[in-house]
This record gives sequence, C-alpha cells and structure tokens, in this order.
Amino acid sequence: MAAWGDRLAGVRGVLLDISGVLYDSGEGGGVPIAGSVEAVARLKRSQLKVRFCTNESQKSRGELVALLRRLGFDISQEEVTAPAPATCQVLKERGLRPHLLVHDGVRSEFDQIEQSNPNCVVMADAGESFSYQNMNKAFQTLMELESPVLISLGKGRYYKETSGLMLDVGAYMKALEYACGIEAEVVGKPSPEFFKSALQAMGVEAHQAIMIGDDIVGDVGGAQRCGMRALQVRTGKFRPSDEYHPEVKADGYVDNLAEAVDLLLQHADK
Amino acid sequence: MAAWGDRLAGVRGVLLDISGVLYDSGEGGGVPIAGSVEAVARLKRSQLKVRFCTNESQKSRGELVALLRRLGFDISQEEVTAPAPATCQVLKERGLRPHLLVHDGVRSEFDQIEQSNPNCVVMADAGESFSYQNMNKAFQTLMELESPVLISLGKGRYYKETSGLMLDVGAYMKALEYACGIEAEVVGKPSPEFFKSALQAMGVEAHQAIMIGDDIVGDVGGAQRCGMRALQVRTGKFRPSDEYHPEVKADGYVDNLAEAVDLLLQHADK
Repeated sequence: MAAWGDRLAGVRGVLLDISGVLYDSGEGGGVPIAGSVEAVARLKRSQLKVRFCTNESQKSRGELVALLRRLGFDISQEEVTAPAPATCQVLKERGLRPHLLVHDGVRSEFDQIEQSNPNCVVMADAGESFSYQNMNKAFQTLMELESPVLISLGKGRYYKETSGLMLDVGAYMKALEYACGIEAEVVGKPSPEFFKSALQAMGVEAHQAIMIGDDIVGDVGGAQRCGMRALQVRTGKFRPSDEYHPEVKADGYVDNLAEAVDLLLQHADK
Repeated sequence: MAAWGDRLAGVRGVLLDISGVLYDSGEGGGVPIAGSVEAVARLKRSQLKVRFCTNESQKSRGELVALLRRLGFDISQEEVTAPAPATCQVLKERGLRPHLLVHDGVRSEFDQIEQSNPNCVVMADAGESFSYQNMNKAFQTLMELESPVLISLGKGRYYKETSGLMLDVGAYMKALEYACGIEAEVVGKPSPEFFKSALQAMGVEAHQAIMIGDDIVGDVGGAQRCGMRALQVRTGKFRPSDEYHPEVKADGYVDNLAEAVDLLLQHADK
C-alpha cells in the first residue's frame, strides 16, 4: 500500500459512522470506544470538516444525540445524517403512507407522516420488535398491495452490542424480499443518495472526503462507490476476515478512531 | 395444452402435499379443504399408489397424522415423507450436533440426536418461536463456527392458515443466510433427494409419478425437476398469478384435490 501521506492527501472532510466507531450500544445505552471521545474533539478542533453518517434506526436522531452527549461526545443533531429523516422526505415526495415495522424508539420521527390505509411498508432496525407477529403483519400488508413497496432503513447484516453480535435490519429485509418476491429500496448507507446528502451537508466533494466506519461493505464499499476514500476501524463489528474481503478493499485499516484521527491530522490536506 | 388423457397417461403413483391441499392449518388445528377427505379415500381405493410428501416442520410426524385423522383423513405415519426424520438421518451420517431453531411441536423428533456443543444450526417453521432473541441466538451460534452449517427444513416463502398468509421458514432462512454470508442446505421440497426418497418409499419411477401441491415453486417446480409431472391446486396458498409464473408451468391447474382425483381416476395409467 502507498504511504499514508499519499493515501490521505487532499482530504478536507470526514464522515464518521457512529455505532462501532464512536461507541458500542448495549445495556444501559452503551459505552464509548476507548479514545473516541477525545478523537472526535480533536477532529472538530482541526481544519477538517466533520459530519456523522449513521444507519442507526432504533432511536430517533434526538435520542441518539442525547445518548452520545451523555457518553461525552461533542455532537449535535444538525451534524447527523440519519435514515429516518431521509425516509420521511421520500414518503412525502411520493405520497406514501407507511405501515411501520420499527422500534418504538424511532416511531416519533414519523409523527408528521400519514399512516392510515398504508400503501407501503417501512422497516428499520426493530430489535426485539422483530417478532413473528410483527413480521407477518408487514408481510401481509405487502401481499395485499398491487405493487408492493418496501423501504428499508439500511441493509446492515449485523452490528455489535456490548453483549455480542446482533442481527440488523438487512437480515429481516431479505426475509420480506424473499417472501414477497420483491426488492426493497434502501434509505441509508450504502445508498449513494444517502452519502451524497451527507457530503452536501458538509460542503465537501466526494474526492475530498473520507468515510470512517466499522462495516466493510456498508461504510467502506458504499463510500468508495461514491468516489470517497474510506478507512475501516478494527472496532465494533470488524472481523479479521474483513481485511481479506473478496470485493472491498479499504484505503486503510486502523485499530480505532483515535488512530484514524492521528493519521488524518498528520497527513490530510497537505 | 394437451388433453388430460395425454397429460396423465402412465401415472402409477401420486404424491400429495398436505398443507393447502388436504387442509388449511389454523386456530384449533385447522379445517379440511372441501372434498379432500373423500378424494384421499377414493385415491386409496384405486390402483394408484399414494404417498404424502410434506414440508410440515412445526409438528412432529405423529402429531400431524393424529391431527389429520381427527379431521377425517385416512392416513398413517408410515405413508408420510417429512423433513424432520430426513434431517435426523443427515445429522447422524455427518456427526452434526444441532442448535435447534424450531417450534416446540417438532422438538421431540430430535430427541435421539446429541445437541450439546452444537456444530450446526437446524431451522424449521418455528412460527411464533421466530422471536428476535431466538433468531439472534441461532445467528450467534453460526458466527462462532469456523465453517457454519445451516440446515433448513424446507424453504417455503409462506403458507396459508385459516386466518391468512403466514411467513414460512424460507424467509427466515434467507435472513440467516444473508447475515452470515452463507448458503443453507435444504432438507425437504424442492430438494431432489427428498422427492426421490418419497418416490422410493412409494416404489414408483419419477416418470410414472405425479405431485399435487399448492406451491408452484416448491411442489410443482421441484417435482418437475425430478422428472415427475405436477398439478397445482387452486387451494391453500395458490394465487392467480401462479398460473403465469415466469419459470414454472404446471402440467395442469385444478380447483382442488377432488378435481385432481376425478381426472386421475379417469385418465391415469390408461
């Protein structure tokens, strides 16, 4: 691989994944990943632009930010690109009335959206709410539609909680896709529209931006397909086999966000 | 299409799917499909050989047969090819110790199988037991294995209960396949081994046999790929669009089992 100086040259903006990079969720909210609170602070004191780009869909953006602030992070709602608000925009534009297969924590994001007589299903990381009954209700709703529309907030395979790996919305999305013989529309990483809206909010071109995430496919592969560079951290859901992924090769692998920030502050935009 | 006489010529054995052909499951056990009790009786009085070939995996074979007998069907355990006993044979042959993601009703089928320190996951139509917690436990078990083995009892998309369409094991199989990046081994229809074992038990060659089912892919397509003929009944999970399926064309579509048996008794083996 090229030297870090070459790999990070010209970077002006940084997109940070949240879960598995800033903190690990779990019992009692979760715990910060060692060094990440300080790393975010250092990044925000630098000349680099910073934005958070998450597929978190169990919590509203307000709840997520409040949790992260309690854990010590300098972060505000306006700095976060998240799939629920992006989905609401899609629903409004297309006159879609969703049946929601979501966690109660994120339901408030859809308060302004008409939900009677649904003509689509919106699914998110519902966690324990992925009961057979709730899955079946979403399935039946789709099967009753002439042209079933399924919108999924992300398509992650799993994420890491303090207690271990947990199934993410992508697994359940595949279940409904197969059962109904349809393909879901994904709002969130790795959808290019989602990355682009984060870049636009940050005011940085793709070739000047770098994504830092723990998901080799959703974060790294997705960002690279948009023309960004991307680092994978060895925290969160990272697994050693990710470094030998058959399709995706990160622009660099770092132990954690702190190491990524060290390298960025040393080499970026020089 | 050719006349029924041509389509059914030389048939000597009949494989009958159970759910959606004999009865619709649901509250209180389920209800027989109109005319099916008599149709089975007529078929068994004829010169045609008859065997039942089901992917039922919520109940043990004993429970299923007891239920069907209560509903009036002339059926015994020995006449039924079902995926749980077939799976036990696979597990024994390969020294596999399963973590079971199954309905409590079928658990007894695995009583003779060592289940400590699991080195594979066996999943079946678990119904309400497809909780997030149970799915996650199966997922974590697979992710801890160096070479994850997932065995699924069937891969149906959905089935019909008296209360409506219900998600079947195939949807949840796809969820685990995607989350773990693996491919499940299917025991049950449409696996050729499964059809062949039913044919063998009936003592009839594939070209002399016909499958009658409500699943255009699992029953009809699967049987045809084994060299059998197959009829789809317009009961159970049948949907009008099945008659225009892009890949599978049945050798005939009939309103129900009673009509299929009328035609068979009139035209088969002439």
